Amino acid sequence: MNWLKTSIMHTRGVARGEIGKLHELSEERQGTFHYTIGPYSNPVMSISPGDKVIIDTMDAYEGKLRTEKDLPSEHLRVPFLNPQNGPIMVNGAEKGDVLAVYIESMRPRGENPRGTTCLIPRFGALTGTDYTAILNAPLPEITRKVDLDEEGVYWSKRVQLPYKPHIGTLSVSPEIDSINSLTPDNHGGNMDVPDMGPGSITYLPVRSPGARLFIGDAHACQGDGELCGTAVEFASRTTIHVDLIKGWMIDWPRLETEDLLMTIGSARPLEDATRIAYKELVLWMAAEYGFDQWDAYMILSQVGKVRLGNFVDPKYSVGAAIQKQYLQP
Amino acid sequence: MNWLKTSIMHTRGVARGEIGKLHELSEERQGTFHYTIGPYSNPVMSISPGDKVIIDTMDAYEGKLRTEKDLPSEHLRVPFLNPQNGPIMVNGAEKGDVLAVYIESMRPRGENPRGTTCLIPRFGALTGTDYTAILNAPLPEITRKVDLDEEGVYWSKRVQLPYKPHIGTLSVSPEIDSINSLTPDNHGGNMDVPDMGPGSITYLPVRSPGARLFIGDAHACQGDGELCGTAVEFASRTTIHVDLIKGWMIDWPRLETEDLLMTIGSARPLEDATRIAYKELVLWMAAEYGFDQWDAYMILSQVGKVRLGNFVDPKYSVGAAIQKQYLQP
Amino acid sequence: MNWLKTSIMHTRGVARGEIGKLHELSEERQGTFHYTIGPYSNPVMSISPGDKVIIDTMDAYEGKLRTEKDLPSEHLRVPFLNPQNGPIMVNGAEKGDVLAVYIESMRPRGENPRGTTCLIPRFGALTGTDYTAILNAPLPEITRKVDLDEEGVYWSKRVQLPYKPHIGTLSVSPEIDSINSLTPDNHGGNMDVPDMGPGSITYLPVRSPGARLFIGDAHACQGDGELCGTAVEFASRTTIHVDLIKGWMIDWPRLETEDLLMTIGSARPLEDATRIAYKELVLWMAAEYGFDQWDAYMILSQVGKVRLGNFVDPKYSVGAAIQKQYLQP
Amino acid sequence: MNWLKTSIMHTRGVARGEIGKLHELSEERQGTFHYTIGPYSNPVMSISPGDKVIIDTMDAYEGKLRTEKDLPSEHLRVPFLNPQNGPIMVNGAEKGDVLAVYIESMRPRGENPRGTTCLIPRFGALTGTDYTAILNAPLPEITRKVDLDEEGVYWSKRVQLPYKPHIGTLSVSPEIDSINSLTPDNHGGNMDVPDMGPGSITYLPVRSPGARLFIGDAHACQGDGELCGTAVEFASRTTIHVDLIKGWMIDWPRLETEDLLMTIGSARPLEDATRIAYKELVLWMAAEYGFDQWDAYMILSQVGKVRLGNFVDPKYSVGAAIQKQYLQP
Repeated sequence: MNWLKTSIMHTRGVARGEIGKLHELSEERQGTFHYTIGPYSNPVMSISPGDKVIIDTMDAYEGKLRTEKDLPSEHLRVPFLNPQNGPIMVNGAEKGDVLAVYIESMRPRGENPRGTTCLIPRFGALTGTDYTAILNAPLPEITRKVDLDEEGVYWSKRVQLPYKPHIGTLSVSPEIDSINSLTPDNHGGNMDVPDMGPGSITYLPVRSPGARLFIGDAHACQGDGELCGTAVEFASRTTIHVDLIKGWMIDWPRLETEDLLMTIGSARPLEDATRIAYKELVLWMAAEYGFDQWDAYMILSQVGKVRLGNFVDPKYSVGAAIQKQYLQP
Repeated sequence: MNWLKTSIMHTRGVARGEIGKLHELSEERQGTFHYTIGPYSNPVMSISPGDKVIIDTMDAYEGKLRTEKDLPSEHLRVPFLNPQNGPIMVNGAEKGDVLAVYIESMRPRGENPRGTTCLIPRFGALTGTDYTAILNAPLPEITRKVDLDEEGVYWSKRVQLPYKPHIGTLSVSPEIDSINSLTPDNHGGNMDVPDMGPGSITYLPVRSPGARLFIGDAHACQGDGELCGTAVEFASRTTIHVDLIKGWMIDWPRLETEDLLMTIGSARPLEDATRIAYKELVLWMAAEYGFDQWDAYMILSQVGKVRLGNFVDPKYSVGAAIQKQYLQP
Repeated sequence: MNWLKTSIMHTRGVARGEIGKLHELSEERQGTFHYTIGPYSNPVMSISPGDKVIIDTMDAYEGKLRTEKDLPSEHLRVPFLNPQNGPIMVNGAEKGDVLAVYIESMRPRGENPRGTTCLIPRFGALTGTDYTAILNAPLPEITRKVDLDEEGVYWSKRVQLPYKPHIGTLSVSPEIDSINSLTPDNHGGNMDVPDMGPGSITYLPVRSPGARLFIGDAHACQGDGELCGTAVEFASRTTIHVDLIKGWMIDWPRLETEDLLMTIGSARPLEDATRIAYKELVLWMAAEYGFDQWDAYMILSQVGKVRLGNFVDPKYSVGAAIQKQYLQP
Repeated sequence: MNWLKTSIMHTRGVARGEIGKLHELSEERQGTFHYTIGPYSNPVMSISPGDKVIIDTMDAYEGKLRTEKDLPSEHLRVPFLNPQNGPIMVNGAEKGDVLAVYIESMRPRGENPRGTTCLIPRFGALTGTDYTAILNAPLPEITRKVDLDEEGVYWSKRVQLPYKPHIGTLSVSPEIDSINSLTPDNHGGNMDVPDMGPGSITYLPVRSPGARLFIGDAHACQGDGELCGTAVEFASRTTIHVDLIKGWMIDWPRLETEDLLMTIGSARPLEDATRIAYKELVLWMAAEYGFDQWDAYMILSQVGKVRLGNFVDPKYSVGAAIQKQYLQP
């Protein structure tokens, strides 16, 4: 019985009668972090569907921006950014299945946890970049360190931001490609969708044996679009449950919370990411909720919700969503 | 004293001590509706800053889709779509000012009000269009009539949608261009931003003498992006207050509600609309709320909100917003 | 008999037995130049199909950049750029016809003719712009004056460029819109296609009574894309023949030279401009040259040619072409 | 002495006094072809700078479309498309070098050589795709087989196309990513630039030890943009010379023929690919040909050439070029 994709969230606890084994993936156990997501790296752990894993993620800079004097151009080097834990192998997973990742909690690590935001040269939405190639001088580099806890993010004397953590990068392996951890695509990757926080389930299309789950890039807080290129990046202790849905063919990642269903597309230009997401949502409503395709298309024109994940990464990510209240039979 | 752009909404009632004169713009008084927004049409009415106008808008099809058997290709003809009331001249308005339009209320007209959604050939987000030109066969044409009142939109036995009205098209005249009412741009136009409903103030940059206000395209309900190309289009009785802010130079439309400030960009591709909107918001925060520009840029990366107006019109519209709570001194 | 669209160029001389009347449109006769292309301006002249007109165009800056010390930001003001001659009324033209404009010659005006190129702030392909809105500092402003004659453009001691003149902006009026002369669209406008020089015929879809022909923006030389935003802009004496093709419905401008057929699309993003152009070419090959549609599509995949007109204007323009040798029966 | 990047083509023969060793990479020796380009596959051969290699490439369908009855959806499976020979290791190559690949000749293989073009569902420029996701029905599938030899491509009784062969896909390995052979990027990949034929040199930025050269995807003929998604794909015998330029840092592929210099960008949307290409060309002219950067920018606005490689692959490829005549000191 497939509680994950058909039930509201509070019933997920009965998924398999009980939660399976508990694993822990500390920094030490992880050892080498990964900057590319694919089928060629050595597994760090194997788990079974239903298991729970506590994961210590590093921040997106691998902790190299220690003070506000540490500038990105001096301490960071592409493509060695956005370190990922994993790959975690899931027993029994094979092409044609879906991996369901429920995020139970995300907590800051360390005694005096801090988050880090920065302006990286030629990266961000309001600057020329390596792709939107221009001749203008780059923006200034800035590194910003902020205190945070589970009550808030203390940006400045004037401004306090909420602590609304989510996972920026969540992936299974592509079939044959290995894709840098900065780029989202149909395997997941660096989607930066703020809804992917505690209480959400993300569905990822398995394309290689064991699924090969990668996870990282915790954000304490992020606005729509991740405007300047970085969120409040922090080192997290993230607890997930992992389940496997056999024989559910999906093309792009999907997400579910207590209130909504979301499909996620990643592409450029931004309208293509949005088209992908909404098309997948039309197909989902038609395939599993009994809507005529054209009716679903027209209903989403009236109540569809769009979440801009990022429009700064090599591909942009968009979530298209519908509230579950409209899906009741 | 300029309550409009500096105060929260509940103080707007003290704008000018009292609301000015009340005008009514019925269908009869409007006579000929307009399909292009520019400086060449004859004014329908002159008002003073502070005045209130009750406007009877037609639906975006000018009422030509009377039953579900009336297909768009037989009853509609480009560019004679999206009829606009106006132009309303505002005394004293001149280039370099801002017109502030507060929407007091939007009510359905007629005894048994209905809304209309349709699939128009080569129009909408999940189809080839005149711009995204392809050789695939077009989607089917569908006309959908739904009952509605101020409690809801009665889509089907299964699905009831909320009544959340907003104005799809709100404009002042460009300086020398006359732009069809399907296209949004920096003069306003067909932005289709769902936040532009009762309780909101829209700020438009005056570019010609008298501002020349146009308004139309009432939606009873619309999702982010207006996916299929049309909302629940309906004939409305819309009440607005109009005020003039002298000497406020803005490049693109802005919007304010009790809770948030929003800037609106319209362009293709969609990332450019988003860039415009967010850049304007950075500049607004820096110019009027005392933020350092780079600090504003980084804060919006954490708490900025994006509203996709439409990604179906000749230009796409995006609102970038920040909640007022983050702007407090 | 319709020589224009069915014959190769050397037969055009027999179009109507003989060329009609000769008209001259000097600067004095033009009087006020136009910055917007639409149905609302007063005609400057009426001609008959088959007539010939000698037109004195101004450069795109209306002659305001007289020396290299004249900076764009001080001497130019949007939207008063790219002055157009016209509108020239063509007797008998009505919606559903095509206006054919054959360019006989383009000569520099004045005794010591010069061309002008410049870098305009936030305009050009390798800079942030009003649409690709960024926070980077703008590029420097530069005004460059160069001598030219019909033998060449004398850029510097080191570099001599060819004299390959063409018309940057050629239009008929839209049906109800009036569009600034910087923007190309399906009415023609600022396409900046280098093939639109002496020896070419441009076909424009008539949408208003009399067609209302506008012309301007002569370029002595221009690369693909008009990279920095401006070509070698010059004041020209341009001689055109104008003909009318009754009852030929086309959606976008088309162009013919002795060797090739070209269709022109204008849109953003650039792939949409290219899609439009190529789709129109497929349709043209199918409608008038006897190709199966899918065969035309696949043949263009092997021998289609793409000309990037500009990717700097509010819409980008692309020409898709096929050499006539492949069209022979 | 570095003849390759500083000399015109006819001097290349003296590159290293003499051409080095001759290698042959037959289908048998290749054994397993590759569908992903990265650092994880086993080398098939090692060569030295200056060596020559004769390579037997397979067509982009790996020969699976044998007759016109073999439909793509039945015989092809993503991502197992566009098989690549290699990786060929080049002795001494390391990050920061450039690999120069001179194409000496391309000949059809087999006794009665044929080329194959096809329409693949949801692939091509004038159709909805997996990225430009729409709900329209797909185009028909068509497989087209054509005879060819070094004199021409015999499309139909009516139409003969030229034999103008080029290599569609040419790559070195990315540093850590492994990218499917359908996608071009800054490592090269599926650029589909028709100039990459016999007589051209392509410069690729080495990013991993040994460079890891991959090659495949021979086209007998291809139009600008590869409109329908496929060229006249054929199995070739391709002869290349490979040289190594130590310490030349370039970010994107470059190309040189006897007449022109070209830089190649790959991105979406298409304007970004064009921006990348032109920016690289400005930088090249400034770094190695003594031009002031702004002068180069303005000169390319007058004589720059754009070649649209493809606008059908996951990233689009554009070449920006300048004729060498303008580069003379």
